[in-house]
Amino acid sequence: MVSVGIVGGTGYTGSELLRLLATHPQAHVRCVTSRTDAGQRVDDLLPLLRGHLDLRFTEPDSAPLADCDLVFFATPNGTAMYQAPALLDADVRVIDLAADFRIKDVALWERWYGMEHVAPALVDEAVYGMPELRREEVRSARLVANPGCYPTAITLGLLPLLEAGRAEPKGIVADGKSGVSGAGRKASANLLMSEVGESFKAYSVAGHRHCPEIEQTLGLATHQPIQLTFVPHLVPMIRGIEATLYVTLRESGEDLDELFRKRYADEPFVDVVPSNLALDTRSVRGSNMCRLQVMEPGGRGVAVVQSVIDNLVKGAAGQAIQNMNLMFGLDESAGLGSVALAP
Amino acid sequence: MVSVGIVGGTGYTGSELLRLLATHPQAHVRCVTSRTDAGQRVDDLLPLLRGHLDLRFTEPDSAPLADCDLVFFATPNGTAMYQAPALLDADVRVIDLAADFRIKDVALWERWYGMEHVAPALVDEAVYGMPELRREEVRSARLVANPGCYPTAITLGLLPLLEAGRAEPKGIVADGKSGVSGAGRKASANLLMSEVGESFKAYSVAGHRHCPEIEQTLGLATHQPIQLTFVPHLVPMIRGIEATLYVTLRESGEDLDELFRKRYADEPFVDVVPSNLALDTRSVRGSNMCRLQVMEPGGRGVAVVQSVIDNLVKGAAGQAIQNMNLMFGLDESAGLGSVALAP
Amino acid sequence: MVSVGIVGGTGYTGSELLRLLATHPQAHVRCVTSRTDAGQRVDDLLPLLRGHLDLRFTEPDSAPLADCDLVFFATPNGTAMYQAPALLDADVRVIDLAADFRIKDVALWERWYGMEHVAPALVDEAVYGMPELRREEVRSARLVANPGCYPTAITLGLLPLLEAGRAEPKGIVADGKSGVSGAGRKASANLLMSEVGESFKAYSVAGHRHCPEIEQTLGLATHQPIQLTFVPHLVPMIRGIEATLYVTLRESGEDLDELFRKRYADEPFVDVVPSNLALDTRSVRGSNMCRLQVMEPGGRGVAVVQSVIDNLVKGAAGQAIQNMNLMFGLDESAGLGSVALAP
Amino acid sequence: MVSVGIVGGTGYTGSELLRLLATHPQAHVRCVTSRTDAGQRVDDLLPLLRGHLDLRFTEPDSAPLADCDLVFFATPNGTAMYQAPALLDADVRVIDLAADFRIKDVALWERWYGMEHVAPALVDEAVYGMPELRREEVRSARLVANPGCYPTAITLGLLPLLEAGRAEPKGIVADGKSGVSGAGRKASANLLMSEVGESFKAYSVAGHRHCPEIEQTLGLATHQPIQLTFVPHLVPMIRGIEATLYVTLRESGEDLDELFRKRYADEPFVDVVPSNLALDTRSVRGSNMCRLQVMEPGGRGVAVVQSVIDNLVKGAAGQAIQNMNLMFGLDESAGLGSVALAP
Repeated sequence: MVSVGIVGGTGYTGSELLRLLATHPQAHVRCVTSRTDAGQRVDDLLPLLRGHLDLRFTEPDSAPLADCDLVFFATPNGTAMYQAPALLDADVRVIDLAADFRIKDVALWERWYGMEHVAPALVDEAVYGMPELRREEVRSARLVANPGCYPTAITLGLLPLLEAGRAEPKGIVADGKSGVSGAGRKASANLLMSEVGESFKAYSVAGHRHCPEIEQTLGLATHQPIQLTFVPHLVPMIRGIEATLYVTLRESGEDLDELFRKRYADEPFVDVVPSNLALDTRSVRGSNMCRLQVMEPGGRGVAVVQSVIDNLVKGAAGQAIQNMNLMFGLDESAGLGSVALAP
Repeated sequence: MVSVGIVGGTGYTGSELLRLLATHPQAHVRCVTSRTDAGQRVDDLLPLLRGHLDLRFTEPDSAPLADCDLVFFATPNGTAMYQAPALLDADVRVIDLAADFRIKDVALWERWYGMEHVAPALVDEAVYGMPELRREEVRSARLVANPGCYPTAITLGLLPLLEAGRAEPKGIVADGKSGVSGAGRKASANLLMSEVGESFKAYSVAGHRHCPEIEQTLGLATHQPIQLTFVPHLVPMIRGIEATLYVTLRESGEDLDELFRKRYADEPFVDVVPSNLALDTRSVRGSNMCRLQVMEPGGRGVAVVQSVIDNLVKGAAGQAIQNMNLMFGLDESAGLGSVALAP
Repeated sequence: MVSVGIVGGTGYTGSELLRLLATHPQAHVRCVTSRTDAGQRVDDLLPLLRGHLDLRFTEPDSAPLADCDLVFFATPNGTAMYQAPALLDADVRVIDLAADFRIKDVALWERWYGMEHVAPALVDEAVYGMPELRREEVRSARLVANPGCYPTAITLGLLPLLEAGRAEPKGIVADGKSGVSGAGRKASANLLMSEVGESFKAYSVAGHRHCPEIEQTLGLATHQPIQLTFVPHLVPMIRGIEATLYVTLRESGEDLDELFRKRYADEPFVDVVPSNLALDTRSVRGSNMCRLQVMEPGGRGVAVVQSVIDNLVKGAAGQAIQNMNLMFGLDESAGLGSVALAP
Repeated sequence: MVSVGIVGGTGYTGSELLRLLATHPQAHVRCVTSRTDAGQRVDDLLPLLRGHLDLRFTEPDSAPLADCDLVFFATPNGTAMYQAPALLDADVRVIDLAADFRIKDVALWERWYGMEHVAPALVDEAVYGMPELRREEVRSARLVANPGCYPTAITLGLLPLLEAGRAEPKGIVADGKSGVSGAGRKASANLLMSEVGESFKAYSVAGHRHCPEIEQTLGLATHQPIQLTFVPHLVPMIRGIEATLYVTLRESGEDLDELFRKRYADEPFVDVVPSNLALDTRSVRGSNMCRLQVMEPGGRGVAVVQSVIDNLVKGAAGQAIQNMNLMFGLDESAGLGSVALAP
């Protein structure tokens, strides 16, 4: 039984960890911290957990995090980097669901995240927790940087084409769309249902932090500089990311569908969907699956890849648990077997 | 392993049975029928089942239903009554998720459902499958009439007050609200998102079939005639029923909250929520739980009960599986342990 | 041309005033105040006004409110009572869209609103701005208390039955449902789309401020004490209120539909819809219409009235403009002629 | 007063024509046809029109279309081409909101629309009704082909860059997103709220009819072959189209924002929004405005253009009325002055 601590249990990635871990057969939540709700029953704030979790939020400073086997940071960016070093020293393994350890180039990170990195030495050690790319390193990692939600969907969608040398590494377009839970559970007038319901918009068009993360991951994986235009959009729904990826094909070759199928043949959480079927985000709602579809419309030399995930599961808490399973030698799919919820 | 057949697998109650049974540890779907989609893979129509169910839809006439231990009818009203007799004769147990066997007064049924009943003899035998009311009869039943969605929410909300003699049996108001999946998966312009999204309305105000069902259940349970004004409403969301129930209190007595808590103390799928917490439908989305809350606003002699369920789970497929578990001596909660999905 | 000032232009009632006044042929917005956005262009915050309104938000203290013919308060409760006296002294007429002057019993007001009233002398003078009830008083009023959103829908739905002596004045049930814009544009995590989307819930079950307002209005109008059980609910949509009203009929008499039709025959903004048509909130979205429907289901002695309005129009800004039109001798419908927006 | 006939008044473009014409000061709906609803009051089907339009649906064959000044076809593709010739012969002017006369290359049209064109001679004469491109021709046109919804948003977004020679004409990516009303009011299980709510998906990835329409329009306007990859997506909202356009910049030059502003300086229904403001579809909901924003993220040589319209207004009925105004010498904005509806 893996003994788990969660720092930051009241945001959406935190509550999703709790939801998934509540039925995990080999992990047990020992403590959840919350500065604002310390002392309160967790299921008072998250009634869906009534009957599933008998726990109260703990003050961050008094939580027995050092006694856990693993601590998840479901905190804003710039939190884990302060607390991870001491935990690692105490032989606690750490998965950060925020961005503190995702970007290897510390200066680049500091520019995009607007703060100084206080644990740059750990950035190198941290393993980027995308099992489809770094499964073996994750198994032995002390510190895992859990990928961002858009980067998960987009990277998995581009990898087969880039690894196989079929895609031009420049001029890639990634048009991403996310449900509003991706913006977190912060009191902001801009995220009220009255503001974002029945409407659609692009945001961060001038530049989004996930762009350098994606370019880094794809660049490291394929040993070439990648250039991406990434524009995220807000969809009036709660969960789900869809990314439509436009890639200039470099040379003819193997059937694209076949290429994708081979690349992910052994992956428990990547599903290549035949091009005659529709692909929607609800087919992964609440599940850890990434579903992909690839086509070359009209044979015009541009591949279009669709990628869908649940931003809170494969895009956050589910992938984090997949990483935990790998780190502790459990079945990689343990606790992640539920079917998506549709309709 | 209970071998299960499903008649009508392409509607929402059918697909919800498939979703829930896909992870049930002691039941196995042997066949699913569909006249229109026979021969097609089930997961082509229901992509959420990709990787979970390797099955094709079968022609109703050639399906090996008689070889199953149990057949669920997830069909329109007036279907099960034709096929149930032969299955029962073949020692197959039957759960009808439609209304064919819910109303004991056959003439009343025929009036509300606008057709002749072809198996009136079975109406008497059929057990109304609400475990909180008929658990023992369900265990030994050959034929279970699975309750309607509104009747489940409303009956569970009214039972404690009526059983304890605290409520006037007349003048009860049940204001019900349902997500649009309650209307089924039929091609109807009136259920298009463009028609029902961003809007709210009452329907069937002049009279709804679930009213006599509720009045019968409560009347039989408390040995008195019950009179209810029931108005259902359509909510621009997919899953969930909320019913707000208004009852004239007959005499003072025990604390209402305490009364509810005692009544449902041993029920695995009824949760009485303290009145200081909010109660919303998403706290049961995807789960088999019914959550209830009771108050007497302003001490004015009127009790207000809120009841929430997922119409497709506790209001249909989940309760049906709960009944199956009872009928086959399984753990009543088997396959129904998942946490609700929120946000 | 009526010269209009608006105090509080960034909330939803304020922005709705701006939207409606932008095309009003005989009124002109002279100033809009906002403490937080002073100096900013109004259409930077409200892009729908681009090309329609060339104005910046003004500091409340420096706004030329005393030079306007009329000032609307689109502010939180407890604001207008501080500023109205000076404006009235300066011969400016005032319409308060909040609750400061709605309840005649100041002690009752102070209990429900949790503050001391600083202008109790004006409470008596204030005219409750429901034209269907107080048209003549509104014409000559200096100070109008614009009705609450639920009270508008519920009062208009109950008036005909109570005025005609057809309804028992006790035991009335008003089950109200509102879109989320009714909660205003405040940064609150509880109103995020992730929290309220795809979910439905009751709120303020123990008691809501609009209950005494409704009881007062109906009591004054029909010279008898009224007792109402009112439970409001939150609908996952932006605009619209539906109220389903349950009334015990006192004696038989005229056809209910006819009764309603006669009562509102000359009302430009009340539409009695025949019972064979569906009645949904989108039929009034963006319009100042209140649509009503009445039935006696099953002839069981309980009348069911449905009432729908747009909470921001007939439930707030539209009714306020209707009042303004009356106060300044304009056509009562001026600026309010737009058709509802559906789908 | 322009006397107007509408063929096909029960779909969304037809009902939107009725909604907009109900308050048009210089046009009057003389007849609306509907085969299925002939004889019924229009406002029974469209309650939003109660009090605004006193008319019944007419059988197509008996409607006095030949007596109208103008007939709008709000019909499925392949209808107007049968009836337009006779109307034109009777000196009635025609605006087709479907696709019959949009594509100049009849063979190309027949391939994409899967039917034979029965009035190819009229294709040449028909004027593509995009006032920003063909204002003068529209004024004198007998037959106007009203542009598609996506083509309107995408063409207006790309025109300034292509006309100025700033964009590579190949490799353009147009990622389009539409609310569900774009799919029309047809009884289809795939458009039920339970199917499309809370979900997001691409569709017609292999090829969409609007792609050749856009390529034709831009090609004719800029005298060069255009190659576009266009992928449409379905957004869980009712109204609104957003298109994000990715264009490789050919040479440096004038500020892009300035370029757009100049191009549309005199356009009443195109608004170039500064890049510091957010741009969402609700800012045009119910209005005839197209709002555009252009940026070059990171100075990387790729221009990103956002374009938003209401698919039923500027994308259909509103643009059709704008064309009617031009054809009959009215103020181009007559009847189109309403402010967008938000929140």
